[in-house]
Amino acid sequence: MGAGIEVAGILVRDLGKRRETGASRGLFTTNPGDILDNGEIDIVVEVMGGIDPAKEYVLRGISNGKSVVTANKDLIAVHGKDLFRAAEEHRVDLLFEGSVGGGIPIIRPLKHCLAANRLKDIIGIINGTTNYMLTRMTRDGCDFQTALREARENGYAEADPSADVEGHDAARKLAILASIAFNTRVTLDDVYVEGITGIGREDISYARDLNYLVKLLGIARDTDEGIEVRVHPCFIPVAHPLSSVNDVFNAVYVRGDAVGEVMFYGRGAGDMPTGSAVAADIMEAARNRIKNITGLNCTCYEEKPIRKMGRVESKYYVRLKVLDRPGVLASIAFALGDKNVSLASVLQKHTDGNTAEIVLVTHKVRERDVQEALNVIGQLPSVGEICSLIRVEGD
Amino acid sequence: MGAGIEVAGILVRDLGKRRETGASRGLFTTNPGDILDNGEIDIVVEVMGGIDPAKEYVLRGISNGKSVVTANKDLIAVHGKDLFRAAEEHRVDLLFEGSVGGGIPIIRPLKHCLAANRLKDIIGIINGTTNYMLTRMTRDGCDFQTALREARENGYAEADPSADVEGHDAARKLAILASIAFNTRVTLDDVYVEGITGIGREDISYARDLNYLVKLLGIARDTDEGIEVRVHPCFIPVAHPLSSVNDVFNAVYVRGDAVGEVMFYGRGAGDMPTGSAVAADIMEAARNRIKNITGLNCTCYEEKPIRKMGRVESKYYVRLKVLDRPGVLASIAFALGDKNVSLASVLQKHTDGNTAEIVLVTHKVRERDVQEALNVIGQLPSVGEICSLIRVEGD
Repeated sequence: MGAGIEVAGILVRDLGKRRETGASRGLFTTNPGDILDNGEIDIVVEVMGGIDPAKEYVLRGISNGKSVVTANKDLIAVHGKDLFRAAEEHRVDLLFEGSVGGGIPIIRPLKHCLAANRLKDIIGIINGTTNYMLTRMTRDGCDFQTALREARENGYAEADPSADVEGHDAARKLAILASIAFNTRVTLDDVYVEGITGIGREDISYARDLNYLVKLLGIARDTDEGIEVRVHPCFIPVAHPLSSVNDVFNAVYVRGDAVGEVMFYGRGAGDMPTGSAVAADIMEAARNRIKNITGLNCTCYEEKPIRKMGRVESKYYVRLKVLDRPGVLASIAFALGDKNVSLASVLQKHTDGNTAEIVLVTHKVRERDVQEALNVIGQLPSVGEICSLIRVEGD
Repeated sequence: MGAGIEVAGILVRDLGKRRETGASRGLFTTNPGDILDNGEIDIVVEVMGGIDPAKEYVLRGISNGKSVVTANKDLIAVHGKDLFRAAEEHRVDLLFEGSVGGGIPIIRPLKHCLAANRLKDIIGIINGTTNYMLTRMTRDGCDFQTALREARENGYAEADPSADVEGHDAARKLAILASIAFNTRVTLDDVYVEGITGIGREDISYARDLNYLVKLLGIARDTDEGIEVRVHPCFIPVAHPLSSVNDVFNAVYVRGDAVGEVMFYGRGAGDMPTGSAVAADIMEAARNRIKNITGLNCTCYEEKPIRKMGRVESKYYVRLKVLDRPGVLASIAFALGDKNVSLASVLQKHTDGNTAEIVLVTHKVRERDVQEALNVIGQLPSVGEICSLIRVEGD
């Protein structure tokens, strides 16, 4: 209220590039100092992305007493701790609503609206590209390569799609969400990451037979053994609220001890949605400066350990190619039982005269036990290939 | 940060009633003055509900310089303007996140996170009781009375269910949401209200045939002719995000010019979810008092007119019982055409030798035109009964 916001300068790499911004040409500069060292400027907005030189610029702005609004997930997920420490030292705001889920309000609701809860877990569909691809593979039965080509044609995938399809984009966002949800600093390195490149049409099809859908999920959970943070493909029940999140949409599903289940849904990327979040942050930063206060910056008051992936408990779907001989299933079942992996369902399908496909779903067991059992199974002479291992979530 | 919150007193009607609160008996009082006029108290939490005496108490607390947290939808929907004026005058916070959608973060996200958007519309499933009933009627084919009985047995419906099933509870929440979304004061009287008592099993079944579901929606829309605010049953497409909101869950779907579509989902009622929202408001009020500021109170900066219901444009589903005679459909179609109501689909089903059921879905037309056409149709000698008129939303 009562504050006009004026754009004082725009840092760009190339002054000559044509831009349809409506901003006066005199505002553009290639010299970062024109903005970061300009005493007239109160708020710096960083939307350049990447670590270098964004980190240096953000820190320089903060040191010069400017509040910073950023949509840079890399920066917050990797260097959040340093940045927030600097912001507190210089008594400025560091706001980052646009770094996760585009325009979906999620950072502020977690920090403020759900602050009275002990949050148990966060499960997110936080990468639009892979969700589009998995939606296509599920609805239309196309394979990974076709889905990727269509994602590219629609502008949803980059020329190098690895950050999306290998899960690294989602991992950054999950580190940020987990840090806020559990009040402990989680960085990118803490996140176990597995992408969707190994998901075959067969897996999508078996999922449907078993009443599941395949989604790339970011899962963060506060357990007695520490914080679980992992990004990987999952089977989730068709009736789960996240199952109806399709195409490029994102959603973050949160469970708290008081609120129960809540979910935030919307477009997780794009100029305008991200702009919506960035503009809201600018408005808050401006209000705070007028009142001469800062908002809630870092909320990582605790130091919780990260739970090792081997200790994680889950149900698992396993697809194997085996020789079609008597005793094969028995030897597989024995190897699983030896590691205390018990089975919820088994499906065997003869593919041709010589080989068969076996699909197993386990009860809830430790990751390490499943992995060790599969190491043994992979060496059985009658087992040709372990095609897929996909965790089952949300039952 | 750095503020302990201490419960200083609890106003109750009956000191003798057994309560499992863990609060010391000495905190309870039946004298409102012990709390409202106590200079030691900074924040008053009002969760008594209703207008009288809640309004007087809230105003008295505000006049005495206390910030107020309330979950009272009646109070905000009817007397919001007066209350916010008092809060601004006395420079205190009036927070009400718990008044809509239980623990679902919605008030603060609308006020803060989506503040940079011009919001186009809000469509909410904001009454858990009716959503539970409609879910039961849809999934299990039971009728209204059976669904109501089960809602009562599960503790979802009051002994007198009229506030829920007749839409008045949803209307209060919609008035609050619309006021925030469109920055103009909308009060309960402005809301057109229609409940679900007229929804028959036939309508649920026709909806499914047409690829829709029946939901009780609160719809608020910012149009050139003013603000639309209406609560009534609707057909919504099965693929709409709101269609997967079942049982007692609530969801608020919002469209903004920048953010696109976002949706907030969760449990819309219950002690603990509402407590989650109330506690978050208490934390904010406490933070603000320490900093000697107030947050965003009233955001109704504008004065927009309310669009008359007759001017609203929608698609309509109409179910009629007619005599099974030649020319009946023609006379109905003529009456509709005469009011410029064009039809998207027509279905005629012979029920027995003498009567037939006709189901019509119109294109997008004005409410008044449909109503006038139905007045004419209702008087046709071959038309027995106009059984249902249900608006179609979200196509």
